[in-house]
Amino acid sequence: MGFRKEYFQTEPGAPEPLAAVTRRRVRFEEVDALGMVWHGRYASFLEDGRAAFGRRYGLSYTRFRDERMAAPIVQMQIDYRCPLLFDQNFCVHTVLHWCDALKLNFEYIIIRDSDNRLVATAGTVQLITDHSGGLLLTETGFVKEFRDRWRSGELHI
Amino acid sequence: MGFRKEYFQTEPGAPEPLAAVTRRRVRFEEVDALGMVWHGRYASFLEDGRAAFGRRYGLSYTRFRDERMAAPIVQMQIDYRCPLLFDQNFCVHTVLHWCDALKLNFEYIIIRDSDNRLVATAGTVQLITDHSGGLLLTETGFVKEFRDRWRSGELHI
Amino acid sequence: MGFRKEYFQTEPGAPEPLAAVTRRRVRFEEVDALGMVWHGRYASFLEDGRAAFGRRYGLSYTRFRDERMAAPIVQMQIDYRCPLLFDQNFCVHTVLHWCDALKLNFEYIIIRDSDNRLVATAGTVQLITDHSGGLLLTETGFVKEFRDRWRSGELHI
Amino acid sequence: MGFRKEYFQTEPGAPEPLAAVTRRRVRFEEVDALGMVWHGRYASFLEDGRAAFGRRYGLSYTRFRDERMAAPIVQMQIDYRCPLLFDQNFCVHTVLHWCDALKLNFEYIIIRDSDNRLVATAGTVQLITDHSGGLLLTETGFVKEFRDRWRSGELHI
Repeated sequence: MGFRKEYFQTEPGAPEPLAAVTRRRVRFEEVDALGMVWHGRYASFLEDGRAAFGRRYGLSYTRFRDERMAAPIVQMQIDYRCPLLFDQNFCVHTVLHWCDALKLNFEYIIIRDSDNRLVATAGTVQLITDHSGGLLLTETGFVKEFRDRWRSGELHI
Repeated sequence: MGFRKEYFQTEPGAPEPLAAVTRRRVRFEEVDALGMVWHGRYASFLEDGRAAFGRRYGLSYTRFRDERMAAPIVQMQIDYRCPLLFDQNFCVHTVLHWCDALKLNFEYIIIRDSDNRLVATAGTVQLITDHSGGLLLTETGFVKEFRDRWRSGELHI
Repeated sequence: MGFRKEYFQTEPGAPEPLAAVTRRRVRFEEVDALGMVWHGRYASFLEDGRAAFGRRYGLSYTRFRDERMAAPIVQMQIDYRCPLLFDQNFCVHTVLHWCDALKLNFEYIIIRDSDNRLVATAGTVQLITDHSGGLLLTETGFVKEFRDRWRSGELHI
Repeated sequence: MGFRKEYFQTEPGAPEPLAAVTRRRVRFEEVDALGMVWHGRYASFLEDGRAAFGRRYGLSYTRFRDERMAAPIVQMQIDYRCPLLFDQNFCVHTVLHWCDALKLNFEYIIIRDSDNRLVATAGTVQLITDHSGGLLLTETGFVKEFRDRWRSGELHI
């Protein structure tokens, strides 16, 4: 598929990426018959990453809902580099890259605690829709506020 | 992320793709708080697609296991184009593209029954490993046999 | 825990139970590190059973939603008797037992195709709530209609 | 179904129950179309409870596997008392009751942080099997050691 190593490219002069970290442990039900985490469960690790990010920067699912907006995922890509086994601890590093268009471009780096091995990298793209499901094309409400604060340098890692 | 519309490109003269179709209905537990299938559940639709493909062409998980091989997924990409709702029926079209290297390059097309809308497209890449987890670089055993039959034109859609 | 073998007992003279059957195959992601279906996934087999029942008798989740009611599960009990393995086919027999109170008392019998072994039995209890989440104590709307037809003998296995 | 409020009864003079607590937050993917945690996901909360218990008292899945034993669940019962919503924090209190027979009788109490409401109670029964899947009827290996320490009062809450 010729995936690029870096999922998102930003323009020179764009605001610096924002990031959050969350830690988890592999649960028994996440492991498949081969003894490793089933590849399909990583989507839920990314969800954990976005949730931690949202709590840190005020960009949570609840916030979107309360503002009668939504941020549906339109693309997801995961590159698996090393298996995760039962009971292993790992971190999800979640990075939001600036995008001039009204998109949320998240990159994820999953690292295993025991030996600091890179387990997986991933990227997701979310669009922003209004209460009627229409695509939001211009900044408004708390999204504008969030982006203003990011642009001004008030938000940072 | 600049994903390509076509996930895999094959060389001129390569064997024609193989394909299988499987049909499913959205289950209650697959739908999220917004009333649509949670994006992370699509990995399981792709798994269903590969299972149907494997049953048709003799390339199942069980076969790999019995031959003491495995075919771990190293890349997955999903492009979401239209939401799926509870109880909707849909088809997963699963296509295996030829690859000179020992990889399984699967492409998926998910189509909703009610209006024939394209719900999602996706691609996965699998490597093939031997009993000790080592990467298989040359054709051997039932994998060679499968590829010989594919090359010779014995296998087709 | 002293579970009873028969989950529900009905009064003499109560309408006969209603039943539906649905068939499934074990998916790769449902199997745990021990090679058998993880016990927690059976809840989704029961959900499949209720969905098949609902389609047959007009008692689906969608119907409840459209009538602005809900039928939350308040009890679930599963007795596991024999493991299910990857790719095995099985049937879920779903039986609704009459209850004078406004409850849905479902019993489930899961049987493996290959050798007709009893895999599991289960029971769930659902209450019925109105649009504001309040417990429904008297028959009304399509629930009354469904129970009238059941009492009259119009509905049967 | 006539479930008892107390899942397990122990003989007078039996060793005192052991217990562990684990804390979680409801994830987006665990919530259904009605905005509350789907009843089938509670099995995974109980699994989290047992995992925390196992880490505290040395009775983990990994330990069983390393000793070439297993502890399959043969019964599960859950009583749902109050819905859990997205992002809510809750505790799983996991209690192991003594059983003269070689069984693991776990009881669970799930409590929501925000208002200390009782969300659910549950019970599971596990048997213990040896390396060939045969039922273990007499205490042996680390299971005997664990039960000796429990009987002697060395293990406690």
